[in-house]
Amino acid sequence: MSCSSRLTPVLRRTIAPCLLRSANASNCVPCAARRISSTATRRLRTSPRRCAKFTTDTYPEIKRDPRFAQITKEHVAFFRELLGKDSALVDGVTADVSLEDMEPYNGDWMRKYRGHCKLVLKPGSTEEVSKILKYCNDNMLAVVPQGGNTGLVGGSIPVFDEIVVNTSRMNKIRFFDEVSGVLVADAGVILEVADQFLAEKGYIFPLDLGAKGSCHIGGNVATNAGGLRLLRYGSLHGTVLGIEAVLPDGTIVDDLGRLRKNNTGYDLKQLFIGGEGTIGMITAVSIHCPQRPKAVNVAYLGAESYEQLQQAFREAKNHLSEILSAFEMMDSYSQDLVYKVRQNKRLLEGEYPFYCLIETSGSNPTHDSEKLEAFLDQLMTEGIVSDGVVAQDETQIKSMWAQREGVPECLGHWGGVYKYDVSIPLSDLYRLVDETRERIEKAGLKGDTDEFPVVEVAGYGHMGDSNLHLNVAVRRYDKRVEEVLEPFVYEWISKVNGSISAEHGLGIAKKNYIGFSRSETMINLMKQIKALYDPNGIMNPYKYL
Amino acid sequence: MSCSSRLTPVLRRTIAPCLLRSANASNCVPCAARRISSTATRRLRTSPRRCAKFTTDTYPEIKRDPRFAQITKEHVAFFRELLGKDSALVDGVTADVSLEDMEPYNGDWMRKYRGHCKLVLKPGSTEEVSKILKYCNDNMLAVVPQGGNTGLVGGSIPVFDEIVVNTSRMNKIRFFDEVSGVLVADAGVILEVADQFLAEKGYIFPLDLGAKGSCHIGGNVATNAGGLRLLRYGSLHGTVLGIEAVLPDGTIVDDLGRLRKNNTGYDLKQLFIGGEGTIGMITAVSIHCPQRPKAVNVAYLGAESYEQLQQAFREAKNHLSEILSAFEMMDSYSQDLVYKVRQNKRLLEGEYPFYCLIETSGSNPTHDSEKLEAFLDQLMTEGIVSDGVVAQDETQIKSMWAQREGVPECLGHWGGVYKYDVSIPLSDLYRLVDETRERIEKAGLKGDTDEFPVVEVAGYGHMGDSNLHLNVAVRRYDKRVEEVLEPFVYEWISKVNGSISAEHGLGIAKKNYIGFSRSETMINLMKQIKALYDPNGIMNPYKYL
Repeated sequence: MSCSSRLTPVLRRTIAPCLLRSANASNCVPCAARRISSTATRRLRTSPRRCAKFTTDTYPEIKRDPRFAQITKEHVAFFRELLGKDSALVDGVTADVSLEDMEPYNGDWMRKYRGHCKLVLKPGSTEEVSKILKYCNDNMLAVVPQGGNTGLVGGSIPVFDEIVVNTSRMNKIRFFDEVSGVLVADAGVILEVADQFLAEKGYIFPLDLGAKGSCHIGGNVATNAGGLRLLRYGSLHGTVLGIEAVLPDGTIVDDLGRLRKNNTGYDLKQLFIGGEGTIGMITAVSIHCPQRPKAVNVAYLGAESYEQLQQAFREAKNHLSEILSAFEMMDSYSQDLVYKVRQNKRLLEGEYPFYCLIETSGSNPTHDSEKLEAFLDQLMTEGIVSDGVVAQDETQIKSMWAQREGVPECLGHWGGVYKYDVSIPLSDLYRLVDETRERIEKAGLKGDTDEFPVVEVAGYGHMGDSNLHLNVAVRRYDKRVEEVLEPFVYEWISKVNGSISAEHGLGIAKKNYIGFSRSETMINLMKQIKALYDPNGIMNPYKYL
Repeated sequence: MSCSSRLTPVLRRTIAPCLLRSANASNCVPCAARRISSTATRRLRTSPRRCAKFTTDTYPEIKRDPRFAQITKEHVAFFRELLGKDSALVDGVTADVSLEDMEPYNGDWMRKYRGHCKLVLKPGSTEEVSKILKYCNDNMLAVVPQGGNTGLVGGSIPVFDEIVVNTSRMNKIRFFDEVSGVLVADAGVILEVADQFLAEKGYIFPLDLGAKGSCHIGGNVATNAGGLRLLRYGSLHGTVLGIEAVLPDGTIVDDLGRLRKNNTGYDLKQLFIGGEGTIGMITAVSIHCPQRPKAVNVAYLGAESYEQLQQAFREAKNHLSEILSAFEMMDSYSQDLVYKVRQNKRLLEGEYPFYCLIETSGSNPTHDSEKLEAFLDQLMTEGIVSDGVVAQDETQIKSMWAQREGVPECLGHWGGVYKYDVSIPLSDLYRLVDETRERIEKAGLKGDTDEFPVVEVAGYGHMGDSNLHLNVAVRRYDKRVEEVLEPFVYEWISKVNGSISAEHGLGIAKKNYIGFSRSETMINLMKQIKALYDPNGIMNPYKYL
């Protein structure tokens, strides 16, 4: 083992895991895999060869809403005047703009969605956003709010010729209080930038995810991103203290409070958290940030069954309790694919049907190590896991996280991935992967050679949050695979009262399937809200509901 | 010192604080003061001598909305038929019901609010609530949803003859998952009952407050109660996973999800959290409960200044971090009053201008004690606090908490209390108490003899959440005191961007002051929501907005 010590001997001596002081804590959370992802994103975006099919071709049943106006020279002139500087527009209406220049706003990094947008606006202030939306609303111009464009369900990609309003120029940190840990920042601040800023102050952003190098915090909040730290720091519905947003009629929702407790009326900001830009556009966020942990430990374990993983999770909650910050599950299929693509050495000598990555984040390195040691000792003594390694330094922490975070990218190695991001009660969670694999195999769609569309069916995810990523890696997208998968997967989830979208949102990918997770009553109530705030339907049309 | 050891010697030897295993953890959270409160509540309610003024006399400007129907015999007959059993109604319309029998539903324990309600309904199911509300909506009968009636702003007390719909018969725990810690329970389950149920499973309700022996969890959620554990477990907006509620038209909002992650549409349940029963009535709650801590430690410290308390708080976040579960501030005025009323021995030998109570809750008694010791050591070494004690057993923990939780009751000893529950940025927090005291003294309203209305001006609260309780203890309610206090307090809070209601809500007490914490835009958006869900305005009228 080049990068980790064996668990068994580790358990017989004092564990001396990677101890990270807050000074360098910004480097302690594993970012290797993430950085690869964002580099990959950039590469894909600028490679015309790999342009996706137009969303309008993938979904021919979606028709352009004839109520929306076509963008004219006069409209562009208004925006040009408003924004003042040329760099704040990408104007494919009146100017000759190359496909490459427009592509980053028209396509997603997964190459699943691609729009026909010809005008991108980059406002520099909330007031500009307000004027843009009001003008669009008055002139029936459809709009797509867009942040770092790292979503997985096509939520930030236009379908037809909607105007993209991009937050990249709104990227200032407005306020930080070193006693309370409250951060107020523009929607366009990149998550990693916010986290690095906080690291210097001894704080941490209460959200972490693979796309942190590119995603905007406004987009994180608009999609109610879950990610890696939810288990420890809770959901954005709890940590976001305030929001500034603009409604389609230009109204500025000035709900940017900085207080942890404020019971003065309906908590309207919550509608924008996970609203995916369909009722308004978030322009700033106020969020409560916890102390940055001084110690981070990571262990990577192999288990013989999913039942054993559940036992391990119960023990982790019991032993690690307040310092448990991640409990990630990976099946052998997902891990084997990573080794195959990256050609790296296995973290464990043996091979197991299941693996988990466990992270602790706490304030006292010695205490955390003792807790982890006691936990691992029990797992080994009771035979709950078969083997494991504990990271001894930051490099090893990164390697272990790369083995988990590298899964999505490596799954895409052969061409494409059918991705399902779902919540399922823990006891049933992995059964969906098994049954899906069985169906795919029965249909004769999976094999080692090019004639079979499916390479592998893999399951992994945030087990601590009952959040499974069911992924089907394919050589090409194929109608037969789709027919085996859908509506099967959604019906299955509906039966166990799961959620068809745990953290990725609805976007265009899941708008037709919300009925599997929500009742008719709830959907109607949601439509009421949409009609209330966006009666003309200009905000992010063709998606969500 | 009868109940605690001196801090100084404690710091020189190994601290051996109260170590509580989960088996008896249900007893470890101090309930003494709370039980006194709920006993007091019952006593006050059934004592006609202490009946409050009618709210209609206190607020003569509020007129009965003539659109609402008077309750007739036919209405009562409908409800009697629907609910089936006599004990599910308190019928002062067609039957002869004593004032005493009606009083618990018409008055609050603070004796500040009193209504003219003549009909109380106690539905036993969500379907019954649905039929009741639909009937009321169709017949323009106004309704007040009511739980344990422990609120402080008159939110659950009728003003005129509104029908009280009380949740006391809806008191079943519907579901609990021992792996995920998700609890689903009826709205009428008493908080302490829920917490005791959880204690047996090794879990804890993520909310704790003085009224736990009486308050209903539906009411807790409807008022977005904050309480004592918010610092550790976050707000209900983050921990509540699902809600079942009934809209005035009888629609059952079936949003009772049990998943930590579910991004399928607008998070409508959030509108009911803190909605104070004005858009619908909560009938059940699904909530994520954390592991019950195995160790609880409490320290009680004296400091020379508010600045020192702030320093202590910063150090607590740094040293205690993930195990810090309460940081409560009390000024000398609030503590002196408790000693005066209860005649108990002082916890510290000396007297100090400020005190704080610090609680840790963690999974490892030894680790927690070490963290606490290091923290206290630093405070003493650097002279941040002057003296302090650490509880050595459960009895001492209770005594210390009683010293904090007894404040509201003891302040009421002389007759009444003007209470302000506000959020203020930490650096400014205590200044409001000083300036208020100054104004009261300048106006000649405070003194030791009966001719002065004001006994004392005291400040205490959840410093960890920037939540101050500014209380003015009086011998009698007096217009002159009110004029000195208001709008001064609200204007002051508005200037520092605080909240006029941190955790108690708006009710009738603060409906006219919301403008000090919310913009015209926000208030208008809230009114839109009210109009959307309750177009007839039958839900909890005369309050909130």
